[in-house]
Amino acid sequence: MQHPDDAAVFRLPGGDLLVQTVDLIAPIVDGAVDFGMIAAANSLSDVYAMGGRPLTAMNIMCFPESLPLSVLGEILGGAQRTIREAGAVLVGGHTVVDPELKFGLAVSGIVDDGEVLSIDRARVGDILVLTKPIGTGIVNQALRKGLVDDRAAAYQHSLRSMTTLNAAGARAARAAGASAATDVTGFGLLGHAAQFARAAQVTFEIDRAEVPVLDGVPALVAGGVVPKRSRENAESYRTRVAGVAGEQDAVLLFDPQTSGGLLVCIPAERLDVFRQAIGDWPLGVHVVGRVAARADHDVVVRSG
Amino acid sequence: MQHPDDAAVFRLPGGDLLVQTVDLIAPIVDGAVDFGMIAAANSLSDVYAMGGRPLTAMNIMCFPESLPLSVLGEILGGAQRTIREAGAVLVGGHTVVDPELKFGLAVSGIVDDGEVLSIDRARVGDILVLTKPIGTGIVNQALRKGLVDDRAAAYQHSLRSMTTLNAAGARAARAAGASAATDVTGFGLLGHAAQFARAAQVTFEIDRAEVPVLDGVPALVAGGVVPKRSRENAESYRTRVAGVAGEQDAVLLFDPQTSGGLLVCIPAERLDVFRQAIGDWPLGVHVVGRVAARADHDVVVRSG
Repeated sequence: MQHPDDAAVFRLPGGDLLVQTVDLIAPIVDGAVDFGMIAAANSLSDVYAMGGRPLTAMNIMCFPESLPLSVLGEILGGAQRTIREAGAVLVGGHTVVDPELKFGLAVSGIVDDGEVLSIDRARVGDILVLTKPIGTGIVNQALRKGLVDDRAAAYQHSLRSMTTLNAAGARAARAAGASAATDVTGFGLLGHAAQFARAAQVTFEIDRAEVPVLDGVPALVAGGVVPKRSRENAESYRTRVAGVAGEQDAVLLFDPQTSGGLLVCIPAERLDVFRQAIGDWPLGVHVVGRVAARADHDVVVRSG
Repeated sequence: MQHPDDAAVFRLPGGDLLVQTVDLIAPIVDGAVDFGMIAAANSLSDVYAMGGRPLTAMNIMCFPESLPLSVLGEILGGAQRTIREAGAVLVGGHTVVDPELKFGLAVSGIVDDGEVLSIDRARVGDILVLTKPIGTGIVNQALRKGLVDDRAAAYQHSLRSMTTLNAAGARAARAAGASAATDVTGFGLLGHAAQFARAAQVTFEIDRAEVPVLDGVPALVAGGVVPKRSRENAESYRTRVAGVAGEQDAVLLFDPQTSGGLLVCIPAERLDVFRQAIGDWPLGVHVVGRVAARADHDVVVRSG
């Protein structure tokens, strides 16, 4: 594929459109149950980003012999809780012994004809809606460095965001008649925005002031917390993104997200429908920019 | 599930029966292309063991930073070749950095109603057909110890067996009207036979002399090659299996298989149909025993 989408779509003989994805991650929080929930929400997200509904999930566990088996049980328990919340069924899995813990899911879902959200269909004039604040990579890095603990507001906000399924956002995107969406993950907001814009041969204009940020994250960035991957993303997308105002802004806007929100293109007049359909959503619905005609860059960030 | 089957079966809204499995393994041979083919055949096998036809596959790669990226390309290339041979489509995947190389696939296929092969439907009087010789674990162990090289007959035979899809065996099982099958993998022939027999509340009688063995493997066992997992299997199933004649026989009969053959229950009078349907099959069709009424053990091995 020229523009790799969030998940693959495959037509089955019986007519169903199968949406499939696989993802696994290293632990980013201390609690094993929380890690299981985050990894599951993160894996399930790609199906939502395609407009689909998850049906089945399979565990993939790389587990060190040095850890107690109770940790394995807690991770699977957390994942099971999130899979159930998604209305999906755990149908199996595989565990291998590995020096470094990793966990994730292979997820299959279905999507209705005409409701597939792909990344190459952003239309000029659409607004860009983001359904979660950014900054999970910065909080995770601060946690590793001991700069925040699990009672910190930044951590609590990040944890709530990472464990929240993108199901409601996908439902709202369908209700608003969206045809293009992605989820914000490892390449950060601007990295995914750049891929998204290029796939449709348009330019995304991002209003810097409208980008939602997790509680406490600006202070962490000001204090020098920089995820390695954030720097790498900024470097990779340097020529494709204009208007980033300085290094600290780059750290934030390219911060790699785990279980990040959906970035959805909808007509401006459907925003109310989107808001109504997403319902009681604790992480905010933010209009972060608009789709413009193709210009010199994939993404232009506008300040002030 | 009380008797975990080889893969999960899930009914989709459109009517298709989805069969899904995930598996990943550490490298067992030196060649990266060969490893990719083996890992793919091994992952796809669970769908065949359920009577299904694979449709989609997703790569799961744990890759060390210390290895050249060309190795990654070779593994994926080998896997792609085998996926294509299976008539399936590679629809994506995920790669993580990991100190130890591991690779496998998440596979989805479909199975027709009435053609599901499950492990709890062995019928008393059926014969037991095995479609590949055993001994891959012993050959892999000998390879690691430098006791065989890649020109050895044992290695060549093992490689051919591990890279061969169980597609033809599944087709033959369907043609012969089989309703019960499994594939022989990590628990060895007797471990899987014990699970299989217990699931259907029967006893499997295995004729020791009829069990096919890879070229050169008896000599390796006589020379003291013992996979650790083989000993563990023998210990785990000690009380469930009778008639194993000494330690060397245990090593072989409990040898963990990678991409092992199908063990299929069919009525004796359908053997010709099975042989005809499997076609030009290079690994032999072996009648290794029969399904008997429930006795004291899950499996009884008969010698001579």
